Amino acid sequence: MASIDGTDLDRTHDVAARSCVPGADGHPDFPIQNLPLGLFSVGDGARRAGVAIGDRILDLAAAQAAGLLTGEAARAVAAAESGTLNGLLALGAGPRRALRHQLFDLLRAESPDRDRVSPLLHEAAACTLHLPARIGDYTDFFVGIHHATNTGRLFRPDQPLLPNYKHLPVGYHGRASSIRPSGTPVRRPHGQAKPPHLDAPVFGPSRRLDYELELGVWIGPGNDLGTPVPIAEAAGQVAGFCLLNDWSARDIQGWEYQPLGPFLAKSFATTISPWIVTPEALAPFRIPQAARPAGDPTPLPHLLDPADQAGGALDLDLVIWLSTAASRAAGLPPERIARSNARHMYWTVAQMVAHHTSGGCDLRPGDLLGTGTLSGPEREACGSLLETTEGGKAPIGLATGEERRFLEDGDEVILTARGQREGFAPIGFGPCRAVVLPA
Amino acid sequence: MASIDGTDLDRTHDVAARSCVPGADGHPDFPIQNLPLGLFSVGDGARRAGVAIGDRILDLAAAQAAGLLTGEAARAVAAAESGTLNGLLALGAGPRRALRHQLFDLLRAESPDRDRVSPLLHEAAACTLHLPARIGDYTDFFVGIHHATNTGRLFRPDQPLLPNYKHLPVGYHGRASSIRPSGTPVRRPHGQAKPPHLDAPVFGPSRRLDYELELGVWIGPGNDLGTPVPIAEAAGQVAGFCLLNDWSARDIQGWEYQPLGPFLAKSFATTISPWIVTPEALAPFRIPQAARPAGDPTPLPHLLDPADQAGGALDLDLVIWLSTAASRAAGLPPERIARSNARHMYWTVAQMVAHHTSGGCDLRPGDLLGTGTLSGPEREACGSLLETTEGGKAPIGLATGEERRFLEDGDEVILTARGQREGFAPIGFGPCRAVVLPA
Repeated sequence: MASIDGTDLDRTHDVAARSCVPGADGHPDFPIQNLPLGLFSVGDGARRAGVAIGDRILDLAAAQAAGLLTGEAARAVAAAESGTLNGLLALGAGPRRALRHQLFDLLRAESPDRDRVSPLLHEAAACTLHLPARIGDYTDFFVGIHHATNTGRLFRPDQPLLPNYKHLPVGYHGRASSIRPSGTPVRRPHGQAKPPHLDAPVFGPSRRLDYELELGVWIGPGNDLGTPVPIAEAAGQVAGFCLLNDWSARDIQGWEYQPLGPFLAKSFATTISPWIVTPEALAPFRIPQAARPAGDPTPLPHLLDPADQAGGALDLDLVIWLSTAASRAAGLPPERIARSNARHMYWTVAQMVAHHTSGGCDLRPGDLLGTGTLSGPEREACGSLLETTEGGKAPIGLATGEERRFLEDGDEVILTARGQREGFAPIGFGPCRAVVLPA
Repeated sequence: MASIDGTDLDRTHDVAARSCVPGADGHPDFPIQNLPLGLFSVGDGARRAGVAIGDRILDLAAAQAAGLLTGEAARAVAAAESGTLNGLLALGAGPRRALRHQLFDLLRAESPDRDRVSPLLHEAAACTLHLPARIGDYTDFFVGIHHATNTGRLFRPDQPLLPNYKHLPVGYHGRASSIRPSGTPVRRPHGQAKPPHLDAPVFGPSRRLDYELELGVWIGPGNDLGTPVPIAEAAGQVAGFCLLNDWSARDIQGWEYQPLGPFLAKSFATTISPWIVTPEALAPFRIPQAARPAGDPTPLPHLLDPADQAGGALDLDLVIWLSTAASRAAGLPPERIARSNARHMYWTVAQMVAHHTSGGCDLRPGDLLGTGTLSGPEREACGSLLETTEGGKAPIGLATGEERRFLEDGDEVILTARGQREGFAPIGFGPCRAVVLPA
């Protein structure tokens, strides 16, 4: 197999590989080349570690109990016995890769154990998916440069990007408690806002509810307080990726955010896709860091690593879909309202990790990082309605004949991500979706 | 006993009460009227729930095992069996009050069980104190109006307070992972800063390291996502208080904080005092909310409650002490460098809780809120060096002949808090202290 910039590709990336699980081959999200990790339950049962394969979930603890996983892979599954994947994430790349390789062999068409695997599979549609890990801290970055430029322009037409933007990955602490897995409805928040035509603020349901298209990054081993992670080791802290909708109440945000940043405008809900797509699965979709134009400042040494610059960015197709109450009543499918790509990150994930820990802050297994909104340069590639509609001034038209400046009750926002590259099997993240409930 | 504005005082506040534990009567922090809860260990032993009494710690699980605690009080102790107090905090006021009353009876001079209590006491000096609970999320507010005014004036002489300040308790999400108990040294952080005389930022040890004097608030039962806590019920969410030093690297902060707020300037370390001083212990020190001058905007209805306005503020003497390497070498005691009071909160704790949840954000047992820096109106009452030295321009002189613009390596900052009121026993929080290590 090929090797890109030091990232080894191996037999688990073979486009010709086939699975013994019916429907897995050619599955849009979960063919045998993906094998994302998650936490599921059946009925009222306990939360168990699982891996997605096609439309099924393989019960990892059951596979281990059946003697189908050994050595490091068995150790990885045992570390997830507590009902969360924190312990598994903490083990880092070695056991995670071992698990991937054994699962690949177990689930491929030629598997000698395929008859023993079959009873350990659950229909995914009959399972409940949970947050895969207990999230200790959640940090949200701002590395989508087109988003930073678009939103900055609304406030500062002459200087959309602040002076620090190209010198460090700007980020802030988010709220961990209100993160929910895909499918959990989001209630429109009440909050305090001051409309421009009023002298004093008012309290009521947000009138400018928005989505934000982001990737989430799961932290693996973590670091001790006071011990920064060098940039060259930062990628080793990443246990996997998900989609993340950073729901935002723009009217609340505009009134509250000075001088200490966003707070209640964000903390009412954050939705993530529940499957952890591993760095191994994404190896074919790594690309050179290209969002930093020539002539921009060179990152300071603690944020600069040649291998990271050569292969630390991701080529992932990102799409936002909208379904409204009216479109569902009319039997219409969700409508694509924007399409972007993860390559628009001005800073790589390794740079985010190195910066985050550069002052000594400790990351813990199961911590979550958000990238910030990943807009592309065109209007059709904007990752939030704030950008697409220019702050609500230019509504978008929908197939139903409806318009949207901001989200309405009953709207369902669906984020999807997909890696595609010639010579490799396409893989997806599974949806990150939630419907807006009335306040 | 007296009653202040609906807050019942009872026999556990009796100034004449005496303890069977030697040295507890007249103890500056922990007489029998305080009874704060904490988590301690002895040697390599497990973490156990304890209560501070004088210079001793009573092992609560041992007291329960000995049959000395019953009913609701026993249930409170059983909830802390997991090695953190989260489960105890989650039970709320009823079991916490029952535990206080039984402990008071057990530890008073007339206790029929005093001979059975004696073997269950540990010398506090021989114990290690831990973070009392697993902190899910940490939120830092900005309710010290003199601090907000003093720091705002450095940037905006004409408009120190932003327009939102008097309409809502401004706050932001902080970092939970880097919170440590009193006594844990703090390493001076590296970080990126841009000194005014340079064109580009530099990376190195912070040169403007500062403390911030705050109270911490422990959350008790918590609320479900999407279910705000009404202001009239908000005080019931508070399980107790501690001191909190929100260490701040001003040079890092100045460069990073726009537009999303403080991040690495704070997340390298936060120090708290380890004892949870309960609302019951602080009942004698409740006062009417007085930091909001006549003529200021009336809070919106969801932040306004008559009982909270009448008795929701706290009269606590707050002191900052500094010990330097030179002062210790000279055998000098820590020097008092500032003295303030908790009454300078523009918003009450109940208002902070009601605001925090007003959009639906969920609080969980063991979450921690910081008040923000509690400066008084005078220079001698400033809760940070940024304020005292006017951004480093006006150094303070120390008894050693040294000066300080910001903190030096080897400096130890000690925060103390004390409630005092005629007719009641004074109580304290125990110190919140940490020494600065070189970068």
